[in-house]
Parts: sequence; C-alpha cells; structure tokens
Amino acid sequence: MTSGFNDTIAAPATIPGTGAVAIVRVSGPEVFTIVDSVVRLRRGTVAESKGYTVHFGSVSGLDDVLVTVFRAPHSYTGEDSVEISIHSSEYIATELLQRLFRAGARAAEPGEFTRRAFLNGKMDLAQAEAVADIISSSAEASHRVAYAQLKGGFSRELSSLRDQLLEMASLLELELDFSEEDVEFASRERLKVLLDETISHIDRLSGSFRTGNAIKNGVPVAIAGAANTGKSTLLNALLGEERAIVSDIAGTTRDTIEETLTIGGILFRFVDTAGIRHTDETVERMGIDRTFEAISRAEIVLGVLDSSLGTDEILASARQLSEAAKKAGCRLIFVLNKADLGLNKNVIIENSIVSFVENKEDIILLSAKTGFGLDSLRNRLQSLIKARIGDPEATLVTNLRHYEALVDAASALRRARASLASSLPSDLVAEDLRSALTSLSAITTGGPITSTDILHTIFSRFCIGK
Amino acid sequence: MTSGFNDTIAAPATIPGTGAVAIVRVSGPEVFTIVDSVVRLRRGTVAESKGYTVHFGSVSGLDDVLVTVFRAPHSYTGEDSVEISIHSSEYIATELLQRLFRAGARAAEPGEFTRRAFLNGKMDLAQAEAVADIISSSAEASHRVAYAQLKGGFSRELSSLRDQLLEMASLLELELDFSEEDVEFASRERLKVLLDETISHIDRLSGSFRTGNAIKNGVPVAIAGAANTGKSTLLNALLGEERAIVSDIAGTTRDTIEETLTIGGILFRFVDTAGIRHTDETVERMGIDRTFEAISRAEIVLGVLDSSLGTDEILASARQLSEAAKKAGCRLIFVLNKADLGLNKNVIIENSIVSFVENKEDIILLSAKTGFGLDSLRNRLQSLIKARIGDPEATLVTNLRHYEALVDAASALRRARASLASSLPSDLVAEDLRSALTSLSAITTGGPITSTDILHTIFSRFCIGK
Repeated sequence: MTSGFNDTIAAPATIPGTGAVAIVRVSGPEVFTIVDSVVRLRRGTVAESKGYTVHFGSVSGLDDVLVTVFRAPHSYTGEDSVEISIHSSEYIATELLQRLFRAGARAAEPGEFTRRAFLNGKMDLAQAEAVADIISSSAEASHRVAYAQLKGGFSRELSSLRDQLLEMASLLELELDFSEEDVEFASRERLKVLLDETISHIDRLSGSFRTGNAIKNGVPVAIAGAANTGKSTLLNALLGEERAIVSDIAGTTRDTIEETLTIGGILFRFVDTAGIRHTDETVERMGIDRTFEAISRAEIVLGVLDSSLGTDEILASARQLSEAAKKAGCRLIFVLNKADLGLNKNVIIENSIVSFVENKEDIILLSAKTGFGLDSLRNRLQSLIKARIGDPEATLVTNLRHYEALVDAASALRRARASLASSLPSDLVAEDLRSALTSLSAITTGGPITSTDILHTIFSRFCIGK
Repeated sequence: MTSGFNDTIAAPATIPGTGAVAIVRVSGPEVFTIVDSVVRLRRGTVAESKGYTVHFGSVSGLDDVLVTVFRAPHSYTGEDSVEISIHSSEYIATELLQRLFRAGARAAEPGEFTRRAFLNGKMDLAQAEAVADIISSSAEASHRVAYAQLKGGFSRELSSLRDQLLEMASLLELELDFSEEDVEFASRERLKVLLDETISHIDRLSGSFRTGNAIKNGVPVAIAGAANTGKSTLLNALLGEERAIVSDIAGTTRDTIEETLTIGGILFRFVDTAGIRHTDETVERMGIDRTFEAISRAEIVLGVLDSSLGTDEILASARQLSEAAKKAGCRLIFVLNKADLGLNKNVIIENSIVSFVENKEDIILLSAKTGFGLDSLRNRLQSLIKARIGDPEATLVTNLRHYEALVDAASALRRARASLASSLPSDLVAEDLRSALTSLSAITTGGPITSTDILHTIFSRFCIGK
C-alpha cells in the first residue's frame, strides 16, 4: 500500500550547525531526477543506481557529497529516497536545499517523512509516535519503553486485542445478518469470558500509564520536610554539585528548584521545596503552597527529618509528611538527615516513625553533608520504580492519547458486558464492541476502523458462500 | 602511502542533540570486526560487505541503524571505515559509542579523522585546513575560497611553484656535483627570469591575504563620524532591526557594537563606534579611543556626515575622517546622512568633500531614517570588495600560516636573487632556493622538504648515467 504522494520533499535530517557531517533527506516520486539535476556523481546517475548503495559526487561549486540511494518500498518513508551527506555548515545545507527546491522539491513539514512512512504503511501510528519518544529519551528506561514501542511490541499487543474483539463482533454481526432465522453463533458464556479477559488486559495497559508517563518524563520526586532540615543540601549531594542556595537560616529556599538525575537508567526529576512551617511572610507562604503542589504532582516524597532535633518534634514532622503524602497518593521515603550527629538516637527515631511508611526500607539514615547513606537512598529510589515497572518486557503505556483510547475502549467493553449480563439484544452488544475496536484502532491508525474491516474478517474467515 | 595506524577510532560525526538522524563514524584496521560485534545486520556481516554499500541492522535493545561501509583506500580517512546512522538522541549515541569502545574502538580526538586523511595521503595540509574553513563559512564568498582550497586549487598552484624552484635547485646542485669540472648547467639569465616570475607570483599570493582574511572572517567596516550624525541609526537601517541604542543626545553610543551582515554573498562585520569629538567625560573618552582602534582594524570606514549641519562643520568632520582613514590605511566611504532634509545643499557638500575620497562613487547620499540610499551603500560596499577579490578564480590566501610561509619563501628568493646578481657561489644560491622550497612545502606537508626530493628530481629527470 502506498498513499501515492505526488510531490517530493526535502529537509535537513541532522541538527544544523558547524560540525563534521550533515545530512539532507529527499523523498518522493521525483527524487532521483531532482537529485541528479543538483548532484553530479563521479560515476553514473542516481536514477540508475541500486537501492542501498552510496555514491561519491559533487554539487557544483558547493561541496563534495555522498549520496545514499533508497528505492521504494525499502526506505524510511516507503518512497524512493535519497540522503545527501555534506560538510556540516549551515551555508552549504541552505544552499543545497535551495537548489533542490529550484529543481522541484519542496520543503518538508515537521515530521513529514515519518507521516509519509505511516501513510505508506511502513509503521503504524504508535510506532510513529515512538520515533518522537526515542529521540527525546535521555535515560535507559524511557529509551527501552520507546524502543519496544518502535519495534511494534505495543502494536502487536493491540493487534491481538483487536483480533479477539473482531472475532466477538463478527460472531455477533453474523447473528444480525441471520436475525430473522434466530441463529445464535456466539456462545454467550464464551463471550463473557473473552470480554473479562480483554477488559483486564486493557486495564493493565491503562494502569501502566502513571508509571510509564513518569518513566518517559522523569519520575517526579518531591524533597519535603520542615524548614532547615537540609533539603537543599540533600539535593546538592544527590546532584554532586552546588545547585540550590544553601544557608543555615530557616526559609532559604523560597522557589521550588527542579533538577533531573539518572539513577540506574531511570530519569528522576527532583523538586526541592520550601520547608513546611507556619509563617507570616507572604513570599515564604507562597513557597509552602508550592511545596504541597509539588507533593501532589510527585510519585515519591522524600520526607527529610532532622535527627538532631527532639524526638517529639521529629515525630510531629513525620506525621505531617505522612499525611501530605497519603493525601497526594505518593510513596513516602523518610530521609533521617544529619545521621552523623547522633547515631544512638537514630534507632529510637526509626522505631517511632516506622508506622508511617509502607516498608522499613523506606527509612534511610543519611548525612547529606558527608554523603553517608546517599547510595542507600539511590538504591531505594531505583528499586521502588523497578518494582513498579515489574516485568521489564511488559508494555508500559507512556502516551496520553493511548491512555485515553484504552480507557474509552474499556468503558465500551464494560457496557457490552453489562448488556450481555442483562441479555440485551446482540446489536447493542455489537455496537459497544465496535466502539471499543474504534478506540483501540485509533491508537495505531489514528482514525476509526471502518466496518469494511469487520466485514472483511467475516468473509475471509467464515467463507459461508452467501 | 598509508601511515598504518593500528587503532580504531570512533566519534559522533553530527552535532549531538535531539533530531532525526545522527551519525557515528568509526575508522581503523579493526573497524569491521568491532562494528560486527555491536551491530547485527539484517543480512550478512559488515566484514563481508562491499565498499559504498548500506545495510539495515540493529544494535541490541538500542536502535535500528543503517551501516555504510567504506573500504580502504576509498574512504574519507583512507582506512576501512563505517558510518552508523542512528536516531539522533544523545542517549543512543552515547550508548552506541560505549559499546564500540568496549568492543575495541577508542574515542577519536578532535580532528583525528581528518588528521588520518592527511597522514594517509588523502589530502594535503592546505586541504585539511580548508575542511575547517568550509565548515565555518557562513557566506558565499568565504565558502567559495575554502571550497577552492579543499578541491586543491591552492595546492596545485604551490605545486607548480615548487616544480619551478626544484628545477632551478636541481640545475644548481648538479653544478655542485661537477664543481671540480667548472661546468655551468644553469643559465644565469634564465635563472634570474625564473626567480623574478616566481617572486612576483608568491608576492601576489601573499598580497591576497589581507582581502582573503577579511573575506574569511568578515570584512571589517567601521562606522565613524562626529557625535549625533546618525551612525547607530545607519547600522540599524543596514541590519533592518533595532540593535544599537538610538537617541538624540550626543554621545549615546559609548561601547562599540559589532554586527555581521551578508551583502551579495560577502560577510561584512560592521562596528558602530562612538562619535568623534572632544569631551571631558572619561567613559566617552574611552569610547572615542575605541573608535580609532576600530578604524585601525577596519578595511573600510563609513564616514558619516550630517548634511543638516553647516558646510564648514561638515568639511571639518570630513577632513578629520579622511585623515583617520588614511592613517589606518582604510578605504573611506562618506555617507551624507539626513540627505532627505536639505537636498539643494547636498551638491555643494559633495563638491567640497570629493577631494577626500578615491572615487566620486565613494560619496553616498543617504537617509538612515527613510532608507533612501541604503541600496547604493550596499552596492558600493559589495563592488569595492569584489574589485579587491579581482578574478574570482584566483587563489586568495586566508590562512596566517600560509601567509607567513609565503613571505618567508619570498624573502629567501630575494636573497637568492641578490646572490645571483652579485655572482656569489652557486651553493649559496641553492641554499636559499632550498629554504624557499621548505617554506612552500610546509604549507601542504606541514614539515620540511627532504633533500631526497631534490635528489629524486635530479636523477629522474636528467638521467646522466653517473
């Protein structure tokens, strides 16, 4: 399948600027003629070159180039394409593009090569979206998710879900065709089991969105706690550099500070917040509002406690943090800071706050100043997220559009299940199944599934000779 | 000739960052084995692939890639090389490089691919230097000069000069071999003519350096004139945007402002200067010092005159500018600003200042406010530089190292000419010729020519059977 574009597009494929090599990409039906009129190969022409070959050539008075030829459908876009490798200079790239435009190409719009790849059936929409994700991934975990999606893992999963739904829909629609004859092709019990399985599968996928999204954009971690407990020092210690302003005066950090850090291949987004305390000062009041806001958007709260304070004071602070974390639905890790100062007391403190955390390992003894305990904290953060990812091969949904489509599909299937349970007519059930199919299909196709697809399935698989 | 590097180097060849395509370049004896251990091709291996072919493959869990194979000596470096085309993400590039390093490659040093190309005889030193120039050229004229040098135009010219000198040196050295027999192979008259020709050729090349350097780095143009004549408004009008701070108060521009602008493919570097006037204010005094400094470094001075002032005042200002330009060895263009205000007077002013300029066309009637005359000014700037470039095919020397080598060569040849004129012994003349050869060779080889070269020339061309 090709969508038959009749124009040829050109654009730089590398980041512009002064460097060793830059690539200009050209794709479309006239690409060989256009490139041959701009580049003179040392031997032969682009038009007579085989796909997947490289040719030395020159662009008159401008540069020596390498031309790589791709022949449809074996190219990124699925069209005849050429990549021209030049010296990386904006002047050369601009001048080369101008010549290509004069020869008949036009400037490609953003993402247009990938759009053509999608429309020419080289990849589905979820894969096309993965291209954008893979490019912007800066850590191993987010990259792995994007790469799996690019390789079609998610698409295959969706495809098997759709096959199940199509089978159910087909059976029900067959009944409709034979409605006057009161035939029942589909076993109602079998349908219910299939529906339950499919709903739970889709729920698992949509349920992975919160983790998937955190992994894609960086897991938000709020560093919270009472004033002057060493939150900024902790952030600096994690980052290994002086980022936040540190002082001994309570209330130094008024604005939230966000820093990203990759730990064990996972990108974390640390937000240092103002200390939680009562204050009359308006500016600091605003900082405290932001603290609660940061907690509400976080996945994990690092509740920083000052072990040098009295046990009652620590306990009060721990309770406050625990409530805030619970309210925001965040995992809470206590960081018992200044643990180098009074080690004997630390055991007592640990015992008194252990009831506020899910797991004893969520209390970390640490000294932001000496670096003691930093590794334990890093390991804890990493293992919490790895546990959430679960099976590293399982699909994580990272895209809001996909999440919403999955939620829509699941609601439609729940309606279908309810209709089945109430023994409502088949066509109502079939409509909900079709609606779920439409939602799932939109993830990979962008548009609604046509009922031709359903019909095609019926006739190709059932061959009833009608 | 290959210099036989025994290690394999790898580095990104494109500018790092988030984009469509990035390229990692690998070169050296183990390149195929190393790449085969990191990339799995869809079909076959890199080691068994022909040069100038492209292969689809994947780097496990990381990315789908295109691998382009180059076989020695048909590659940029002259070695076996591979270019790996990946999705442009810093994560992928870094991870791929780490895998290549683990497989035996090492990180390339800056310019190391081009250094290998030079040492493997793929290009000479002047061409290697042109690679750097071509990448950083931002305008047509500078690009053309760099590209001509890359294509070996300058190198061929040097080569023909060296051939002439080698012939002279060979003749003289032959005499030395036969010195006891008092033979004179070289006609003294012929030698003198050849020397004169060669010296004048080298002088022309070194004489092009000032223009060549200005074209490469941008032609410096100082905008000078009395306070409040509209210099900043003129700069803004040329740039078509508000760059300099403009006000009606004399002495607004205290610091020099530099802006680049490409006119007719030539890069100009405009320096707006503080108004020239007597002042007690220290800060402004410093600005005026900078004005003279800017003029001394300029190729062209735009002397801005305010046509709304009295003729005597204009004349005094014009004289001052003319003296400053003459002292600095700059070409002076008068810009008679505010020409929209008193057109009748302009003819009188023109006649009174025409003696200060080389050509009547160096007086431009202009209104920085309305834009009148801006095109004339742009055309004048462009045509002055094009006249200086002269024959667009002629070599322009743009590199200080080349310029100094040419000057050294010319001095040595002048010494040789003086020795000849004084009928000093042949070996003294030959020594100066050898010194000139050494200087010229250094431009393309970086090192001294060995006397083996001279001997080789003797025996290969003269075959005297000794």
